Amino acid sequence: MNTHQVHTKWLGEMGFEHQGGIIKMDADAEFGGNNEGLRPKSMMLASLAGCTGMDIASLVKKMKAEIDTFTIDVEGDLTEEHPKFYHSVRVNYNFFGSDLDEAKLQKIVYLSVDKYCGVMEMFRQFAKVEVNINYLKS
Amino acid sequence: MNTHQVHTKWLGEMGFEHQGGIIKMDADAEFGGNNEGLRPKSMMLASLAGCTGMDIASLVKKMKAEIDTFTIDVEGDLTEEHPKFYHSVRVNYNFFGSDLDEAKLQKIVYLSVDKYCGVMEMFRQFAKVEVNINYLKS
Repeated sequence: MNTHQVHTKWLGEMGFEHQGGIIKMDADAEFGGNNEGLRPKSMMLASLAGCTGMDIASLVKKMKAEIDTFTIDVEGDLTEEHPKFYHSVRVNYNFFGSDLDEAKLQKIVYLSVDKYCGVMEMFRQFAKVEVNINYLKS
Repeated sequence: MNTHQVHTKWLGEMGFEHQGGIIKMDADAEFGGNNEGLRPKSMMLASLAGCTGMDIASLVKKMKAEIDTFTIDVEGDLTEEHPKFYHSVRVNYNFFGSDLDEAKLQKIVYLSVDKYCGVMEMFRQFAKVEVNINYLKS
């Protein structure tokens, strides 16, 4: 499996939670670990989600976009050969609300993607980055 | 301060601990956060340390290098302008032991740096990466 996936949940303000609150890094038993922590490469994806997520949280407030909450799912595809790196990454933004202003939310996402998110800029240097936005009734 | 620093400690086998065991991401009060979690960009550095650290842990075992423990310190310098990314990164490996085989440890580090560490390969696409090795009597 050369696709890693990270799910990041917004906790309000600038807080984000990432897969159960652990930061210890560990590997699978297959690679000599005990599976008691995050894979370091997945942390790159969490970093990307957190960086753009903080932009979104900030811009939603500034631009008075009405949302109940949002989540970000990031998927990265690794190369087959060592050193294995993410050659393709998909960032999926999921906005939840009863009356979402889709145009405003799209503007917010692309302000982060194109202008503010430094981690996204780093990813663009080694990966093809695809952005998707989902608007969900809540 | 455009220099971020991450300290990663080897826990034995493939386990690593990173600054107090938290994974929650948060920002400084200055940026609307409560300082209750990791900065997403610092997580990139933790990812780099964990990735190369797991290589080292594995190779130390395979190549029977005698060490008591090791730590990795990673520093990254951010650009001034948005999107802010790490343009220069320093990875410092610190090996502790009573009778360290420096040549063997150097070989181990560069097997990770040049051949195995995918996160290092990603960093090289956007940053100048500098590697230092310290041998410390313990």
